[in-house]
Amino acid sequence: MVTDLIYRELHSPHSGIFLNVKEYLHRSKSKFQQIEVFENETFGKVLILDGVVMLSERDEHYYHEMLVHPALTLLDEGMKVLIIGGGDGGTLRQVLKHNPSSVTIVEIDEDVINVSRKYFPLLASSFDDKRVKTIIGDGVEFVKKKKESGFDAVIVDSTDPVGPAEDLFSPEFYKAITEIISENGVFVTQSESPLFDKKFIVNLIKQLKTLFNNVENYIGPVPLYPAGIWSYTFASNKYTLSMHQKREIPGTRFYHNRMSFTTSKEILDEISGC
Amino acid sequence: MVTDLIYRELHSPHSGIFLNVKEYLHRSKSKFQQIEVFENETFGKVLILDGVVMLSERDEHYYHEMLVHPALTLLDEGMKVLIIGGGDGGTLRQVLKHNPSSVTIVEIDEDVINVSRKYFPLLASSFDDKRVKTIIGDGVEFVKKKKESGFDAVIVDSTDPVGPAEDLFSPEFYKAITEIISENGVFVTQSESPLFDKKFIVNLIKQLKTLFNNVENYIGPVPLYPAGIWSYTFASNKYTLSMHQKREIPGTRFYHNRMSFTTSKEILDEISGC
Repeated sequence: MVTDLIYRELHSPHSGIFLNVKEYLHRSKSKFQQIEVFENETFGKVLILDGVVMLSERDEHYYHEMLVHPALTLLDEGMKVLIIGGGDGGTLRQVLKHNPSSVTIVEIDEDVINVSRKYFPLLASSFDDKRVKTIIGDGVEFVKKKKESGFDAVIVDSTDPVGPAEDLFSPEFYKAITEIISENGVFVTQSESPLFDKKFIVNLIKQLKTLFNNVENYIGPVPLYPAGIWSYTFASNKYTLSMHQKREIPGTRFYHNRMSFTTSKEILDEISGC
Repeated sequence: MVTDLIYRELHSPHSGIFLNVKEYLHRSKSKFQQIEVFENETFGKVLILDGVVMLSERDEHYYHEMLVHPALTLLDEGMKVLIIGGGDGGTLRQVLKHNPSSVTIVEIDEDVINVSRKYFPLLASSFDDKRVKTIIGDGVEFVKKKKESGFDAVIVDSTDPVGPAEDLFSPEFYKAITEIISENGVFVTQSESPLFDKKFIVNLIKQLKTLFNNVENYIGPVPLYPAGIWSYTFASNKYTLSMHQKREIPGTRFYHNRMSFTTSKEILDEISGC
């Protein structure tokens, strides 16, 4: 009988987090990755992909609100949105708060959606909204083949840039994004930990600056992610984040419309002059 | 022979962090608390008081910069500052960047200063600055007895509100602060984790609102603190945080002068109408 099950995740070679496992609920191997779900008494149900925490019931709002709202509040309601990744439905749920006319979501791993429907229905029930078109497939291929275009917003909600998500951080992919996004569109991607992945972030910003007039990195807390602080990178030809509209987004827990967005001095210093 | 020493700290009853111990450097018991120092390959030297991480070489700047700079950039250089706590010298180091005319620091535990002088000289060498007056004693008593007054800024850099630091979060202490701070002075205190201590924070804000015209809670990352996100509470009769001056602070790594300061929607909702 298991009496003391502990989930442990390295965030650097010499540090990490642990979570007591109250109940181990699910484990399966999809075509792309290992999917696990367990219950922790503090954070609720936790979704793990390939041994990395994706979200918990208690902390998912920090990540999903900060990925979606800074960019989408720049646009008027009725926008056309593309989400790459995000099979748990958390990003989709926040996007729907902006009354989009349509949302296309391209998730490579159908099993993530199905597991999330079972264990995270608050998030994954968003797939049932009639404005949502769900495509099971490769996001990079979807974008490169221009299967759809004219998106007002493109949001990349991916796992780390190793394994299935690696090509979502390539120059070719970003170039292809510029061809399916509308002239005044906004692009945003999760962009890893400012403490542990500073070089990656600086490189990403430099790449995007060759393609968009305005590129900004900003940070927010995500308690179960490495160092508890996460970064997002925004790009647009027309907008900057400070132009965000003051409309209220219903039911947010962290984001609010008097917030402003920026990154650390260290990152600003690295990209100054680019 | 110890070959696999791991430091583990609970941040809630069911979750926490772990740090591999490369070298265990110091352990002593002062009159007030247990003091430990070890080396971790990712975070450098780590200071532990009563089994709780106070700082690491790699992440201390997040906490000390965000505790000090938002409040002190409101004032002109040459200000008179009081620090309660902060025996490691990290807060003092940031305060000195503002060219204060004098800094009084009241630390209850001399052993913390001495251990920090040995293991964290970058921070604790600040005690040698000739503008600094170091008092070993009880900060609450110092304030209540009005041993000095007319401070332009009072900064509370304390441990958690249990044990030695408990009285630093009492209504009587805050009331006494108002009697030693100048009319246009600024007050700031560390105020725990917005994820785990929301009730504490809301109560603190309500208390301070009975004493100061303007009270604001704001957050910032601290990787090794619970949930990786920490809060600070600011109070002043004259100033609000948005009035901060745009002067540059030399050598910051996280804070910069285009940053703005706010807290989560959940906390704003709780205090609205107070």
